[in-house]
Amino acid sequence: MVQTISVGLLGLGTVGTGVVEIIDNHQDKLMHQVGCPVKIKKILVNDLNKKRDVYLNGTRLTKEADEILTDPDIDVVIEVMGGVDLARDYIEKALANKKHVVTANKDVMALYGSELLQIASENQCDLFYEASVAGGIPILRSLVEGLASDRITKMLGIVNGTTNYILTKMSEEGRNYEDVLKEAQELGFAEADPTADVEGLDAARKIAILGTLGFSMKIDLDDVAVAGISNISKEDLDYGKQLGYTMKLIGLADRTGNKVEVSVQPTLVPQAHPLAAVNNEFNAVYVYGEAVGETMFYGPGAGKLPTATAVVSDLVEVVKNMRLGVNGNSAAIPQFGKNLKSNDEVTAKYFLRIHAKDVPGTFAALTTLFSEQNVSLEKILQLPLTGNLAEIIIVTHAATKRDYEATLMKLNDLDVVKEVKSSYRVEGDDVR
Amino acid sequence: MVQTISVGLLGLGTVGTGVVEIIDNHQDKLMHQVGCPVKIKKILVNDLNKKRDVYLNGTRLTKEADEILTDPDIDVVIEVMGGVDLARDYIEKALANKKHVVTANKDVMALYGSELLQIASENQCDLFYEASVAGGIPILRSLVEGLASDRITKMLGIVNGTTNYILTKMSEEGRNYEDVLKEAQELGFAEADPTADVEGLDAARKIAILGTLGFSMKIDLDDVAVAGISNISKEDLDYGKQLGYTMKLIGLADRTGNKVEVSVQPTLVPQAHPLAAVNNEFNAVYVYGEAVGETMFYGPGAGKLPTATAVVSDLVEVVKNMRLGVNGNSAAIPQFGKNLKSNDEVTAKYFLRIHAKDVPGTFAALTTLFSEQNVSLEKILQLPLTGNLAEIIIVTHAATKRDYEATLMKLNDLDVVKEVKSSYRVEGDDVR
Repeated sequence: MVQTISVGLLGLGTVGTGVVEIIDNHQDKLMHQVGCPVKIKKILVNDLNKKRDVYLNGTRLTKEADEILTDPDIDVVIEVMGGVDLARDYIEKALANKKHVVTANKDVMALYGSELLQIASENQCDLFYEASVAGGIPILRSLVEGLASDRITKMLGIVNGTTNYILTKMSEEGRNYEDVLKEAQELGFAEADPTADVEGLDAARKIAILGTLGFSMKIDLDDVAVAGISNISKEDLDYGKQLGYTMKLIGLADRTGNKVEVSVQPTLVPQAHPLAAVNNEFNAVYVYGEAVGETMFYGPGAGKLPTATAVVSDLVEVVKNMRLGVNGNSAAIPQFGKNLKSNDEVTAKYFLRIHAKDVPGTFAALTTLFSEQNVSLEKILQLPLTGNLAEIIIVTHAATKRDYEATLMKLNDLDVVKEVKSSYRVEGDDVR
Repeated sequence: MVQTISVGLLGLGTVGTGVVEIIDNHQDKLMHQVGCPVKIKKILVNDLNKKRDVYLNGTRLTKEADEILTDPDIDVVIEVMGGVDLARDYIEKALANKKHVVTANKDVMALYGSELLQIASENQCDLFYEASVAGGIPILRSLVEGLASDRITKMLGIVNGTTNYILTKMSEEGRNYEDVLKEAQELGFAEADPTADVEGLDAARKIAILGTLGFSMKIDLDDVAVAGISNISKEDLDYGKQLGYTMKLIGLADRTGNKVEVSVQPTLVPQAHPLAAVNNEFNAVYVYGEAVGETMFYGPGAGKLPTATAVVSDLVEVVKNMRLGVNGNSAAIPQFGKNLKSNDEVTAKYFLRIHAKDVPGTFAALTTLFSEQNVSLEKILQLPLTGNLAEIIIVTHAATKRDYEATLMKLNDLDVVKEVKSSYRVEGDDVR
């Protein structure tokens, strides 16, 4: 059987171009891996006449999706067009027409992944999406296969390159958020409308996908509690640093029994933790397994060739499965029911920064309040401010979210407290 | 087909016990993954009557390997007994008897891996060995599958936990090698005879396996240039730190075209490089791919459950392949010829520490010599010593190994040089 595998490509933007290049440049290696030639037959584009920066080797361009989705010769559809509704429709139609699908689309997978995997399974088709989370890191495959015999209990992910770039620059150069964001936009590291990145929405989609796969539970985007980085101040980073922490936007998925917490928030991690060394636009996912302990997967989170590499790795898997006649077997449909943890069940350490009156009794009032709320303190740093105020930085021991939030509320009512300036979660302090 | 898969286990030491526990504790998950029960039928042990710390659930113990290797009911043999010759014989016999093999044995795989994979392929059997390199990290599978469509150009691995533990303690606590080694031996992190670890031999076996798989070339143990950590002084670490570096024992595999360099040596990496944050007994492999760029895989390198998890993940893969009838397809037999780089083709940056006479003209003599040898200098640090001597620390730009070694020779002949105290390779300075 030396039949050629025909691929239909939806989209010829950055990633699509990368896919064309890799398939073209690596024909030998692909041939060795899958045992037959792989060829892109048609590509869906918006503009047939646009000048392209890639050698298309006679591949036909089309503006009609159906020319690809209903072409009986096309075996695999690769969706790299982005967007949500249209992409979802095309993926669904491709699967219904018994075409295997590889997608890099985190939005579609976070919103409709479970349904689409179900459709794939019913049609005995593969639906792979490694490129949708941290393109350059083979994390999804590692969760499914490499840690196959383990039980994953927690994941901490730096899964958004834009925010990690901004936080790295703020931290290393002592600059303000607005400053660095502006520069990042000028350099093309942040979009003109950066909301999805800086407010944590992009990270939320990715941690929903990771949680779904890692815990084998259907984690919906609505299950993810989200906070972004736009309120982080230079002072927060400085005081964090003084106490030994680095600020990262962390997507967290945590499981205790069948109860889960999934969230995205600016988080302080100890400087000695491997996540603290993940800088600039790099991504990483830190995984806790019951048996294996702690592992981390690090690499580029996006970019033309990293993402295209993940897409083509998925394509190789699809073709291998085709040759073995086992497509659709690996559609990882969630097998466990999901229960979100209540605020009594979420426990964490917290960092908080308070402006308080620099008068006798302030400390006693604060510590009494924390103690009454069952929140014990690990580190305290007090510094004088102008105007008879003190800057007080506190790192707590692990406390329930309910107790901690109640404490925050009551702090604002305390006479000696002028303002709670900021409050962040602390993770990774259990590292050896 | 709800046939039970029968496993024969060779060895019931630490890892073997872990394998028994994981298979016992995860029957449900295994059943879900592979669709049939998996049971350990027989275990090869040295002493039938020894008290065991594990529930054996009626599994038969035997002192006769042939009871396992020739039992027609046994589908998969797991080799976790260690050692070389006997383990190799058993693996070969198991394969000849059409049994799939999973091994955690780096020694056997480094020495006889290619031959054994050939035998596996001829018998249409799987031979998997994920646990042989950095047990807790699914690195081999990532190299084969996750980066399938990429071309790997370089790997830097911290692949020996004992030496990383020793170097971490020396660096963090400012202690001497002998001191820390003694403590590590008392704590059980180093063996009574630590030679294989501290002289880099264990790391050499692992980088040979990684190089073979990553480059698809047969890298023999003899191809690996090895240097260990026993001569590293506290001063080397201190001066390295002053110039922004952390000392690690790095296994390196580097490819330019079809020319390779494979080596193990104490290496200085920049403090901001992710490898510098790999501490204590943790392992990591930093991979450079042509398309994907830089990725890192981090986790425990050894330990009962991490290693056993890798073994059971391989077992899951074998059983999946059995159910699909495709065993032996994935035996990754090297496909490219190997050519070792000459000393003219190996280029690197180096750190060196010299004791020189603190007299006028010393610097000129040194810089003239480097310049004559085509080695240019990036950083120089000079400090006074007692006795009219100066401590001079130099970091070079990239130079060929031939030029650098010639420089070292001639340095010793220079009148102003009292002694070349130490010299280390520098890697990872290209990190962004």
